[in-house]
Amino acid sequence: MSQPAYRPRMQPALDQLEHLLACYRQVRATSEALCAPLSAEDHVVQSMPDVSPPKWHLAHVSWFFEAFLLRPYLNGYRPLDEAYDHLFNSYYETHGTPFPRARRGLISRPGTLEVYQFRAHVDEAMEQLLSRPPVEHAGEIVRRVELGLQHEQQHQELLLMDIKHILAQNPLHPVYRDDLSPPPLGHEHLRWLGYAGGIYNIGHGGEGFAFDCERPRHREFVEPFQLASRPATNGEYLSFIADGGYARSDLWLSDGWAQVIQGGWHAPLYWQRRDDAWHEMTLGGLRPLDLDAPVCHLSFYEADAYARWSGARLPTEAEWEVAANGLAVRGNFLESDHLQPVAAEPEGEGPLQLFGDVWEWTGSAYRPYPGFRPLEGTLGEYNGKFMSGQMVLRGGCCATPESHIRSSYRNFFQPAMRWQFAGVRLAREA
Amino acid sequence: MSQPAYRPRMQPALDQLEHLLACYRQVRATSEALCAPLSAEDHVVQSMPDVSPPKWHLAHVSWFFEAFLLRPYLNGYRPLDEAYDHLFNSYYETHGTPFPRARRGLISRPGTLEVYQFRAHVDEAMEQLLSRPPVEHAGEIVRRVELGLQHEQQHQELLLMDIKHILAQNPLHPVYRDDLSPPPLGHEHLRWLGYAGGIYNIGHGGEGFAFDCERPRHREFVEPFQLASRPATNGEYLSFIADGGYARSDLWLSDGWAQVIQGGWHAPLYWQRRDDAWHEMTLGGLRPLDLDAPVCHLSFYEADAYARWSGARLPTEAEWEVAANGLAVRGNFLESDHLQPVAAEPEGEGPLQLFGDVWEWTGSAYRPYPGFRPLEGTLGEYNGKFMSGQMVLRGGCCATPESHIRSSYRNFFQPAMRWQFAGVRLAREA
Amino acid sequence: MSQPAYRPRMQPALDQLEHLLACYRQVRATSEALCAPLSAEDHVVQSMPDVSPPKWHLAHVSWFFEAFLLRPYLNGYRPLDEAYDHLFNSYYETHGTPFPRARRGLISRPGTLEVYQFRAHVDEAMEQLLSRPPVEHAGEIVRRVELGLQHEQQHQELLLMDIKHILAQNPLHPVYRDDLSPPPLGHEHLRWLGYAGGIYNIGHGGEGFAFDCERPRHREFVEPFQLASRPATNGEYLSFIADGGYARSDLWLSDGWAQVIQGGWHAPLYWQRRDDAWHEMTLGGLRPLDLDAPVCHLSFYEADAYARWSGARLPTEAEWEVAANGLAVRGNFLESDHLQPVAAEPEGEGPLQLFGDVWEWTGSAYRPYPGFRPLEGTLGEYNGKFMSGQMVLRGGCCATPESHIRSSYRNFFQPAMRWQFAGVRLAREA
Amino acid sequence: MSQPAYRPRMQPALDQLEHLLACYRQVRATSEALCAPLSAEDHVVQSMPDVSPPKWHLAHVSWFFEAFLLRPYLNGYRPLDEAYDHLFNSYYETHGTPFPRARRGLISRPGTLEVYQFRAHVDEAMEQLLSRPPVEHAGEIVRRVELGLQHEQQHQELLLMDIKHILAQNPLHPVYRDDLSPPPLGHEHLRWLGYAGGIYNIGHGGEGFAFDCERPRHREFVEPFQLASRPATNGEYLSFIADGGYARSDLWLSDGWAQVIQGGWHAPLYWQRRDDAWHEMTLGGLRPLDLDAPVCHLSFYEADAYARWSGARLPTEAEWEVAANGLAVRGNFLESDHLQPVAAEPEGEGPLQLFGDVWEWTGSAYRPYPGFRPLEGTLGEYNGKFMSGQMVLRGGCCATPESHIRSSYRNFFQPAMRWQFAGVRLAREA
Repeated sequence: MSQPAYRPRMQPALDQLEHLLACYRQVRATSEALCAPLSAEDHVVQSMPDVSPPKWHLAHVSWFFEAFLLRPYLNGYRPLDEAYDHLFNSYYETHGTPFPRARRGLISRPGTLEVYQFRAHVDEAMEQLLSRPPVEHAGEIVRRVELGLQHEQQHQELLLMDIKHILAQNPLHPVYRDDLSPPPLGHEHLRWLGYAGGIYNIGHGGEGFAFDCERPRHREFVEPFQLASRPATNGEYLSFIADGGYARSDLWLSDGWAQVIQGGWHAPLYWQRRDDAWHEMTLGGLRPLDLDAPVCHLSFYEADAYARWSGARLPTEAEWEVAANGLAVRGNFLESDHLQPVAAEPEGEGPLQLFGDVWEWTGSAYRPYPGFRPLEGTLGEYNGKFMSGQMVLRGGCCATPESHIRSSYRNFFQPAMRWQFAGVRLAREA
Repeated sequence: MSQPAYRPRMQPALDQLEHLLACYRQVRATSEALCAPLSAEDHVVQSMPDVSPPKWHLAHVSWFFEAFLLRPYLNGYRPLDEAYDHLFNSYYETHGTPFPRARRGLISRPGTLEVYQFRAHVDEAMEQLLSRPPVEHAGEIVRRVELGLQHEQQHQELLLMDIKHILAQNPLHPVYRDDLSPPPLGHEHLRWLGYAGGIYNIGHGGEGFAFDCERPRHREFVEPFQLASRPATNGEYLSFIADGGYARSDLWLSDGWAQVIQGGWHAPLYWQRRDDAWHEMTLGGLRPLDLDAPVCHLSFYEADAYARWSGARLPTEAEWEVAANGLAVRGNFLESDHLQPVAAEPEGEGPLQLFGDVWEWTGSAYRPYPGFRPLEGTLGEYNGKFMSGQMVLRGGCCATPESHIRSSYRNFFQPAMRWQFAGVRLAREA
Repeated sequence: MSQPAYRPRMQPALDQLEHLLACYRQVRATSEALCAPLSAEDHVVQSMPDVSPPKWHLAHVSWFFEAFLLRPYLNGYRPLDEAYDHLFNSYYETHGTPFPRARRGLISRPGTLEVYQFRAHVDEAMEQLLSRPPVEHAGEIVRRVELGLQHEQQHQELLLMDIKHILAQNPLHPVYRDDLSPPPLGHEHLRWLGYAGGIYNIGHGGEGFAFDCERPRHREFVEPFQLASRPATNGEYLSFIADGGYARSDLWLSDGWAQVIQGGWHAPLYWQRRDDAWHEMTLGGLRPLDLDAPVCHLSFYEADAYARWSGARLPTEAEWEVAANGLAVRGNFLESDHLQPVAAEPEGEGPLQLFGDVWEWTGSAYRPYPGFRPLEGTLGEYNGKFMSGQMVLRGGCCATPESHIRSSYRNFFQPAMRWQFAGVRLAREA
Repeated sequence: MSQPAYRPRMQPALDQLEHLLACYRQVRATSEALCAPLSAEDHVVQSMPDVSPPKWHLAHVSWFFEAFLLRPYLNGYRPLDEAYDHLFNSYYETHGTPFPRARRGLISRPGTLEVYQFRAHVDEAMEQLLSRPPVEHAGEIVRRVELGLQHEQQHQELLLMDIKHILAQNPLHPVYRDDLSPPPLGHEHLRWLGYAGGIYNIGHGGEGFAFDCERPRHREFVEPFQLASRPATNGEYLSFIADGGYARSDLWLSDGWAQVIQGGWHAPLYWQRRDDAWHEMTLGGLRPLDLDAPVCHLSFYEADAYARWSGARLPTEAEWEVAANGLAVRGNFLESDHLQPVAAEPEGEGPLQLFGDVWEWTGSAYRPYPGFRPLEGTLGEYNGKFMSGQMVLRGGCCATPESHIRSSYRNFFQPAMRWQFAGVRLAREA
């Protein structure tokens, strides 16, 4: 898996079709590289309704190109199998009827091999479309290809989350890859960084790709605040546990406490007690807990309870964006090939690990920005319809392609979800 | 049920104990007046887990005074029954173990009569406490009594919501009261009112009572916006239904669409088709739908879908508060004795029915204001711990005591809930 | 509550209408006497889907007379309220649509008083019908009245089961009656009684009332067997518990073991550990466990596991009937006014407590006898349609009216049910 | 897949180890032959909790030999992987903790290939054990091998049931095998055959293998009865449907009617309406319904309702055995390679298709015979613990190995189950 495959760098010159095609090839190759360590059997399993079988991911991202580019714009395009249009539609209600999500793991056929053939079929047609796009639709085609690549990058992260969850069900603790980059050692003290209050511009305003939900750029008043210099570590989180964090209702939101009780939660997802020591299931197998690495696989409820216990709170998404604005997008991403958050490395005075390592839960519900307009037509189902019951996370993680993230990027999950690489950075009033 | 009973008017002079005691008596009498039309059997039923039996409400609000005032501050206070401390604790986890909410309707004893005896026991002790409060705790006692009265007023509205829901389960369509005030006729055209953008102060800042979640007063930047002059009416909502509102997935948030399917929703709660015409279950029995009255008993999802269908959106809570600031708190409240939203009456140029009639769903999730601090100790469980998974509603309704509401008041419910008197006022970009 | 009310003695001379009317009055009066200790609130509660509110029982047994006698046979009969025909239909699908069982506890109106008025209305009409029955239907009317009275007697037992269950939900341990007959002391050693093998006649063959499911009388071959002289006692069952009875999967049927785990079962229903001693919730309140009384409120699974632990098995229903045939129907019934199983009293060589005290689980599934024919029409739904998923119990209990039971009587419950007065008598191969 | 592989013929001379070993090889080869048409992905899916992934079946039957033969009796045996002892234990609670049944489909590893390696490992060790069994355990070893082979044959049928169910979830209607034996044509009129009443010996009494639940042979009195000459056909069942069979509550047991409503049942499992004609999903793909073939994939409830509609009833298991006694075990079995019930072929005066084609639901609950003794130790969990909540089926089906069935064979399923090859033969009083 060579590095370039992970760096489409689509932002600079997307108006040139050759560049777009190069990006297309790289993104598509990356998805397949991520599945290379899997057996055919691994490709089928759906370990909970929120997880999808890897072969479904591989097919669905191809369906996206077929449904939104090849069918409308490639003259004479012949789908490989008409049934795939139903099988691999995720949730686009205005595009036929999606196959029920919770039953994706019951479909053994088409098999992995046929899914790769479907990918090849789509790729061939996409090469054709991109080499001679119909002039009157060229602009829209470029926009949709760009969206399709961003979409596939999202599914690359989902693939890693889902593969980790699938393998973690197995009492044999199977290892996804035993050749991951070794995590660096390090120990950074937590510092508090101050930010001035005032009116800030929030949201995506410049050029380059952004999802509809990052727009429009708009003004928000932000009171002065402080932000922790790095995410909370496993070691810090252990202190929370040791102090009865999972046993004290007063630390929790009411819904969170109900989850603690019902789910029997007593540690982050994937932590296991073995031989009197905490271990963590990783994509590299079961490992002793690294006390200096960011704590990961927390629900919003756990992040919130930890913050309350710390005498702090979660940042709002506006605060987070204020802190991130102007910073270079660097960090422990998919390309770092750790596939696990690692200890912070010292670097200047500013915040560490704002990008990469772990998604950072914010205290903001995922709701539309003032003046929000979803995309037209079926693609309008991409983001807007999920704007209830979810909280915003920021900054990307160790499974996010680096070229996929930016400071205005809004990720979102239900507050009880834990299988994404999510951690917590503290904030407080100035 | 005389009018004065509904007007505690606690705001002006709460430092005087006689006034506080008068308020206490009025609020307590009102709760009992609301239950007077009920049979003993009506007092027991819990028609869904969110509903509580009326006798539980009557007891719980008394428990609040016992737990937070009589036990800590009245020397020599003897509880009527120690078991009540467990039975009538709602959700205060740090005050013993609450009896499970979903099982409240399984407890036939203490019966209604004994609950009234419990009330009398508490009232007697409260009179004693308020006539000679221990000097060193006088300030805290006044604050807690005030909170206890506000709390009981909230349960007065809950009582009416729950009684309506209980009676609505019954195929006999029982009538709660047949002597309600007759609804006025009227038809107001919808106008759009414009508001300037800028930095506004939001939240409770002045004197007088407010809940912790309304504080602190803080700055928010609000873009220019427009607000509908009145809530949407039943007639307008019928057009939404006629246009396939409940059958078009593209109008709905994803979670909302799932609810429509799962719940078989096709109209607001309490609407019934009879003899080819829509009727509505009210506290005055089954009535033909009043097309000019505000549509009521909508979930957030329905309010949101209706707004999308209208080419508009829900207001944020800041926008709503900007519009309400400085307006007199007047409208169709509990004291109007309609117990049902009624058609708007023309009045000046400003917004109509901003207060009273129906709670208005906003597009804002219920989250803490910047700098929010919950109350100390067990009373801190009052608001803060519910700040996830709920949306804010504003303005009070036809079942809210008039003295209970203010422009900074934040009500909140899960987005699928429909049994509260909730409607929708449209907003849009300026 | 005078004794005669419990002794309809319908068997001897049911052809005489005066006698039938006297029975009618007695049975109807008994139902009301059983509810006399209840408050209005007690009448409303449904503590689980299998339980019905007492006022529903009182109304439903009256509906039975209305639906099957007054409507078809009493000229000019006017129902008190047409809606009751739906509300109080239990499960007769061919007689309109029954109101959903699990929602019976949500219906506060008609209230207790109106239900008594409904009873009086039905009683008056029944007196009229029975004083001058239409000649051409007289035979059918007598048969249906007889069935209606047997039906109401069944509901008398259900009333006591359900009242016990309702009150037992309450942490205050309310007492149904504090004037019950005091239980006798006694200790009977368990003896084994032998019975010869051969072809036996099983089922009801003679005159007098019997349900359709007890018919036809038919031949069964029974191998030689032995039967315990009395049911297992609380003391014996304690030894089972002490020996890890609820912790050893090898003692249980697979379905039973799943119930033990899922339900957290560790003792019979209604047992409570208090001050280091076992107590039992009874209709007379919480009492210390009587070690010599029959163990009660066992599921089939517990009875079966106890038998396996004892190196024995449950009797088949044929074996039980062989043992009971020819024995007088005497024992601790409703009329004994213990409303709780009591220790056996020595009496001759034969089996003790075969009738009364506790229903005895048999190892027989409730299935039709060879040649079974259900009643014609809607009344055919009485027994036959329940012949799957249930096990047979025999002999009546301390809540069964004495005149209601006979040696051929087949009671039946799902194997996990525990709120009926059910115990266990051991059997083994000869 | 050659015929011999399906005919272990273990009955004649099991005392000879060479014969046993030959049987072992044949049975083991058959299991693998049945999975040969499957892809690796097909091996992983668990389409409902009652279904197991094919690779689980292949591993579990091997675990059986490892747990009950190799571990106790083969000196120096080294398991391939200790974790398999947990992963592939089905339900033997007294042999460690079984991996949860409903999660079998979440385990992608060991993969299919490794499962085959596990099989080879076990086979090699079994060859070793059977070539030189320790003398003192030789008898028990032979008995256990025999049981292990019968067990694997049961799983061969389960494999076919589960594969059918897995493929049927797929909207693409995948075909398991397209080279199945073509079904014969035929149309046999239904005749009624009479049987005399009297005392019969029921259960397995002779030599040869039988499960513990078929024992002991005992006497039962059977009244005179009549039995249909063949199972009900698809054509006959269509008449039941056309007559409103799925819409008339009076035809159904109460539990069955609840299933019809809840499951939306309106035809047997696997029936599909296409182009205005009924089709049936088979292991050979979707086929037009053969009106003369036995109706299949009925629940007990459907079989019972059909019988009631026909004015008949289900036979008891004793009646079925009376009819089957002395008849040759011949019919449409696994070896016929139809893998689907087919139309009856005329043959003499006796009953047709009593063996093979479809399992025939009886009206008998699965309960122990008088004097039943389960096997000693963990193997005692094989049958006895399932003796509640299930009904007996008789005769084997088109997926049963011919050598596996006999007239005393008792199969059992919960009454709502439909994925086994089950049909209905009518009975009635003589």
